[in-house]
Amino acid sequence: MYFYRPTANNNGKKRGDDMALKHIGKQTAALTSPPSFAGHAAVAGTKESEGPLGDSFDFVSDDALFGCDTWEQAESAMVKKTLAIALDKARCAPSEIDYLFAGDLLDQCVGTTFGLRETGIPFFGVYGACSTMAESLALAAMLIDGGFASRTAAVTSSHFCSAERQFRMPLEYGGQRTPTAQWTATASGAAVLADTGEGPYITHVTAGRIVDAGIKDAANMGAAMAPAAYDTLKTHFEDTGRDPDWYDLVVTGDLGAVGSEILEDLFRQDGAALSHHRDCGVMLYDPQQQDVHAGGSGAGCSASVLCGHLLNGMRAGRWRRILFAATGALLSPTTTLQGESIPAICCAVSITV
Amino acid sequence: MYFYRPTANNNGKKRGDDMALKHIGKQTAALTSPPSFAGHAAVAGTKESEGPLGDSFDFVSDDALFGCDTWEQAESAMVKKTLAIALDKARCAPSEIDYLFAGDLLDQCVGTTFGLRETGIPFFGVYGACSTMAESLALAAMLIDGGFASRTAAVTSSHFCSAERQFRMPLEYGGQRTPTAQWTATASGAAVLADTGEGPYITHVTAGRIVDAGIKDAANMGAAMAPAAYDTLKTHFEDTGRDPDWYDLVVTGDLGAVGSEILEDLFRQDGAALSHHRDCGVMLYDPQQQDVHAGGSGAGCSASVLCGHLLNGMRAGRWRRILFAATGALLSPTTTLQGESIPAICCAVSITV
Repeated sequence: MYFYRPTANNNGKKRGDDMALKHIGKQTAALTSPPSFAGHAAVAGTKESEGPLGDSFDFVSDDALFGCDTWEQAESAMVKKTLAIALDKARCAPSEIDYLFAGDLLDQCVGTTFGLRETGIPFFGVYGACSTMAESLALAAMLIDGGFASRTAAVTSSHFCSAERQFRMPLEYGGQRTPTAQWTATASGAAVLADTGEGPYITHVTAGRIVDAGIKDAANMGAAMAPAAYDTLKTHFEDTGRDPDWYDLVVTGDLGAVGSEILEDLFRQDGAALSHHRDCGVMLYDPQQQDVHAGGSGAGCSASVLCGHLLNGMRAGRWRRILFAATGALLSPTTTLQGESIPAICCAVSITV
Repeated sequence: MYFYRPTANNNGKKRGDDMALKHIGKQTAALTSPPSFAGHAAVAGTKESEGPLGDSFDFVSDDALFGCDTWEQAESAMVKKTLAIALDKARCAPSEIDYLFAGDLLDQCVGTTFGLRETGIPFFGVYGACSTMAESLALAAMLIDGGFASRTAAVTSSHFCSAERQFRMPLEYGGQRTPTAQWTATASGAAVLADTGEGPYITHVTAGRIVDAGIKDAANMGAAMAPAAYDTLKTHFEDTGRDPDWYDLVVTGDLGAVGSEILEDLFRQDGAALSHHRDCGVMLYDPQQQDVHAGGSGAGCSASVLCGHLLNGMRAGRWRRILFAATGALLSPTTTLQGESIPAICCAVSITV
């Protein structure tokens, strides 16, 4: 297992007092002026709208092509739509956004770049596979807290059909799926952050390290990603001195049923209970009624669950403290063909009202 | 042309005094505590070592496979090597790096993720195509200036053979190249930034907007990227109030010969001369002796020229002020097959001694 934990604390003595304020523990930033969610939106396809979170989407397309000619164009149309709704809910024009962070799963992130090419917003493309929304939010929040921006935005997406074509088989092939496989969500989530506002706020960011547990089965991403989630969550709790129970919800990205069980097991082996744990991949679909095997996945899965169900719930007073820990498997079809194992990452963002 | 310029200045009145300090003009950040380059390294293949900048590389592999079995593994080995040399030159252990920004051109950025999976450094994956080094440096510098880190690193790469296989044809096919085509450099550049040090320093960052000039020829990336370079450079000069001549060098990423001519033409039409302009894609190879058509390209092209030739030259007193403006074409083979035009981006980083 590639899982190197340095004994030295990298928050060393060289750092001045100012630094110590924001960089706590090993890899966590405690924001001194936590940015507020000014607007957020979730968009999805029909299947997702028929799941338990169906009511939380701002827009559902009954056409999987979103009115376009190709799956890739459909994903771009979805990204564009989601950002537009989030901006509208934030009462914000594109020209008022200082920086935009975005990414998706497609080769060269073209779902994103083609979807956003008309916005005119200064753009930072990011790639963290299914963890991209947490990574985007982390950087978007830090640029506000660091005084570089007054408003930033983050948007990520995935589309079942563009992902199947690229990562697995053409849809027409009708490939069989194993029980550990997850279903790439046709979904997108977008958020606008601002230096003022009434919350919810992003207060902490714990960046992830790449963890490769040696899993080689590309149809079992949950198992590949669970050790990365464990690494980042454990570090976050150590860095902040918080108990897992401090959060109303510890939400992982898309470990699915298999990965969630492994993650909870890893904490149990430490004598700790991850009792408030939920997983976006498990929440998005109904395991009895919808045939998604181990659950949902995709860069739009955790993004849409956060920007719909979770943030709506925080605004409604249902939860006060959420740790959003999106997970990503950093492989490609080529590396799988070459017999490589699957490196994974998890980025965590602490959100409170 | 997708090229939307909002009339309103997004550096609006809502921003407080603190903000105004760092965000100047439309899309530029002026860093208040400019981070210093603590170490930098460039690694390349044989062909690059035989060009005009051959002496500037810290390591040259005479084996295109870098001792590995596949081109993708070779690229990962190169990334790992480059970062290791940069860390060594900065007298810095991996555990002393707070955040690492990195990316490459391969699908799902696997050159990067597999190359860095053993480092244990908190990781942010970025994708800006051939502009990735400027994007990585921009974010790495802002996280230090914002007080989130005392040391960060950036590394990007490209490999001729892995890129040909993925973007064009298998090498064995021996595909013909058009005169406007560029040669993907087998090269990598890495830099370590620190909150203290004797420079050179990153003082300003101008993030790029996506610009799509309608070019559809994937063998003419220079033409596709030149309008993005023009947009970012013009904005940088406006935002900072600097004349192009203020810089000893205005270095674009990899416009090549064709794109460079277009860029200089665009400035000439404005009545401005980009007299100190150089391009990494033009500098890397000898146009007479090496058959690279319009020049070099790739995420490792501008990265290796910056982290070798340019930063070495600044340390030696040859140049005092460089604007490093890396350019990227945000397409994929799929979007080209679907008849799409090529969106592009340019991110600029101002470096002074």
